[in-house]
Amino acid sequence: MGDGSVFFLCNRSRLVPLFQGHHRTCKPAEMANLMEDEVFMAFTTYAAIVILKMMLMAPLTAYYRITRGSYANEEDVSRKSAEEKKKLLKAHPDVERARRCHQNDLENVIPFMLIGLLYALTGPELSAALLHFRLFAGCRIFHTISYITVLPQPSRGLSWILGMLVTFSMAYRVLSTVLLL
Amino acid sequence: MGDGSVFFLCNRSRLVPLFQGHHRTCKPAEMANLMEDEVFMAFTTYAAIVILKMMLMAPLTAYYRITRGSYANEEDVSRKSAEEKKKLLKAHPDVERARRCHQNDLENVIPFMLIGLLYALTGPELSAALLHFRLFAGCRIFHTISYITVLPQPSRGLSWILGMLVTFSMAYRVLSTVLLL
Amino acid sequence: MGDGSVFFLCNRSRLVPLFQGHHRTCKPAEMANLMEDEVFMAFTTYAAIVILKMMLMAPLTAYYRITRGSYANEEDVSRKSAEEKKKLLKAHPDVERARRCHQNDLENVIPFMLIGLLYALTGPELSAALLHFRLFAGCRIFHTISYITVLPQPSRGLSWILGMLVTFSMAYRVLSTVLLL
Repeated sequence: MGDGSVFFLCNRSRLVPLFQGHHRTCKPAEMANLMEDEVFMAFTTYAAIVILKMMLMAPLTAYYRITRGSYANEEDVSRKSAEEKKKLLKAHPDVERARRCHQNDLENVIPFMLIGLLYALTGPELSAALLHFRLFAGCRIFHTISYITVLPQPSRGLSWILGMLVTFSMAYRVLSTVLLL
Repeated sequence: MGDGSVFFLCNRSRLVPLFQGHHRTCKPAEMANLMEDEVFMAFTTYAAIVILKMMLMAPLTAYYRITRGSYANEEDVSRKSAEEKKKLLKAHPDVERARRCHQNDLENVIPFMLIGLLYALTGPELSAALLHFRLFAGCRIFHTISYITVLPQPSRGLSWILGMLVTFSMAYRVLSTVLLL
Repeated sequence: MGDGSVFFLCNRSRLVPLFQGHHRTCKPAEMANLMEDEVFMAFTTYAAIVILKMMLMAPLTAYYRITRGSYANEEDVSRKSAEEKKKLLKAHPDVERARRCHQNDLENVIPFMLIGLLYALTGPELSAALLHFRLFAGCRIFHTISYITVLPQPSRGLSWILGMLVTFSMAYRVLSTVLLL
C-alpha cells in the first residue's frame, strides 16, 4: 500500500487486486472454509457413513416386505385378490425388526450428527474427535448387525449404550465450552 | 501501512481502523458469511421448504384424529363416557396412513438436510446444487400427495426412490471431496 | 508492506508473518469462528439441552420396559420360559406412552434444530433469538412432563403447538431473509 498498488480484501481475506471480479474469486475459498479444517473433515466423513448406513435400512425393510409378503399400504397390493390382500397386509416379525432397527437409528444417529456438528465447531483435538467418531460409527454398524441377525444379548444393548455415551461425551464438551443461557 | 495509518483486521477481514469497536462492526458480516454464498442460500431455501412440509404432517394427523375419532392417549378423550372412550382409542386407517407418511418424511428429509448441509459446504456448482435440491423437494411433495390421496403405485415408490437417489448422489460428492477416516 | 516485511493473510484473516506455519496458527481461530458469535452460542446451548432431553427418552423407555415387563425383541427375554416369554413380549401402555413421547420429540426437536441452525446463521438479534430458543426448550420440557405424568389436556396440546409455532417463526425469518429458489 506504500508502493501504490491497490488491494482489496474480499470477504474471507485473500488479498485480491481491485477490479478483478473478486467476488467470484473468493467463492470457492469461502465455501471450502470449514472443509479445510481436519476435525470438520473427519466429522463430515463419519457423518456421511452413519447416515448412509441409516438410509440403507429403508431398502432392507423393502426387501423384507417383498420377500416375506408383508405390506402396510393397500395400494401396494392392488393387483391381488381380496383374500391374498388380507394375508399380505399382515405384519411380519422380520419387517417389524428392520423397522425397529431403523427407528433406533433415527433416535441415535441424528442426535449424534447434530451434537457432532456443534462439537466439531468447538475445535477439539483431532485425535479426540476421531476417537469419538470412530467409536460411534463402529457401535452403530455393530448394533445393526446384532439387531438384524438376532445376536444374543447384551451385544445389541451394549453397542446401543456405548453409542449413546459417545454422544453424551460430545454434548458435555459442547456445553462446557459454549454455554450461553 | 507505509502511510502511517493503523489498520486492524477483524476476524473476517474487513479493514477496520483500530479503536473503532471493530468487534461489533464485524458481527453481522461474520454471521451473514455463509448466507452470502449462493449455494448455501439455495440449500437454506429448499431445506426450510421440505422441513415445513414435513412439519405440516403433524397438523394433518391431528385433523384426521379429530375428524375420524381416533386418539392414542386416554387424556385426549377424558370427557367422554367409558363406552365412547373405547371406540375413540382405536386406530383408524387414515390416521395410520398420515403417520406412516410422516415417518417416511423423517427417514428421508432429515438425512437429506444433514447430507445437504455438508454437500453445500463442499462448494458445488450452483446449477448442480439447485438440480439436487429442486428434484428432492419435488419428489417429497409428490410423495406426500401420492401417499395421502392413495395414488396407484408406482407413483409413491418412484418418488421415494428418486428422493433417496438425490441424497445418495450428494453423499457421494461429499465423500469423494472430503474423506478423512 | 512499505517497510519491507512480508505478511501473509491466512484463511480467516489474521496477519501472520510468512514462513511461520500459518496454517496451524489459524486453525483454532477458524474453528472457533462461529462459536464466537453470541447468537450461535445461544443456539448451541439450547440445541444441546433439547437434544439431551430427547435422548433421555430412550433410557426412560428402557426403564419402563424392565419395570413393566414389556419387551419388543425375543432375544431380550431369551432366558425365560416359553410361557413367560409370551407375557413379556406384549405391549404395555406405559412403554407405548414413552415411545409416543419420544416420537413426538423426533418430529419436533429435530426440525427445530435444523431450522434453528439456519436461523442462527441469518444473524438475528440476540434477544429475539434467545426468546425463540428459551420458549422452545421450555415448551418441550413441559410437553414431556405432561405426556409422561398424564396431565389433563390441553397442557400437552398447547405446549406442542407453541413449540411448533416457535419453529414456524424461525422458518419465516429464514425464508424472508434468504430466498433463492
